[in-house]
Amino acid sequence: MKAKIVITPKKAVLDPQGKTVQAALEQMGHDGVKAVHVGKYLEIELEGDAEAWRPKIDEACHKLLSNPVIEDYHFTIE
Amino acid sequence: MKAKIVITPKKAVLDPQGKTVQAALEQMGHDGVKAVHVGKYLEIELEGDAEAWRPKIDEACHKLLSNPVIEDYHFTIE
Repeated sequence: MKAKIVITPKKAVLDPQGKTVQAALEQMGHDGVKAVHVGKYLEIELEGDAEAWRPKIDEACHKLLSNPVIEDYHFTIE
Repeated sequence: MKAKIVITPKKAVLDPQGKTVQAALEQMGHDGVKAVHVGKYLEIELEGDAEAWRPKIDEACHKLLSNPVIEDYHFTIE
């Protein structure tokens, strides 16, 4: 069983890494890129019950893995 | 339309960030974590035809966004 967590900067937060990637894509000649957001991805291999893990993963995202002031997160367990 | 790109370290590559997160989860009292892999996530907002973008995004992943020696990537356009 795996938890897949995606952490992205909130829309209102400046994303200089995203801006840099966007500029690089344009320099490669790719027009039509409206925006780029760069975030983190975590895959956690788990043992046990998925429903029992859900609140634990949520707590870990909130306290450990993301900065809730400037980042959003969502995750799936499957 | 959005391209969602996930870049993860190859399985054979040491992932010290993942090991650190795993240790932190164990310290929070969560048993049953078998492994943690930490990677990158990119969301690219695009204009135009999805099928035309597919090879361009693949090229960008290969040349710009990932290090193919130590990282794998996969993406969806939707």
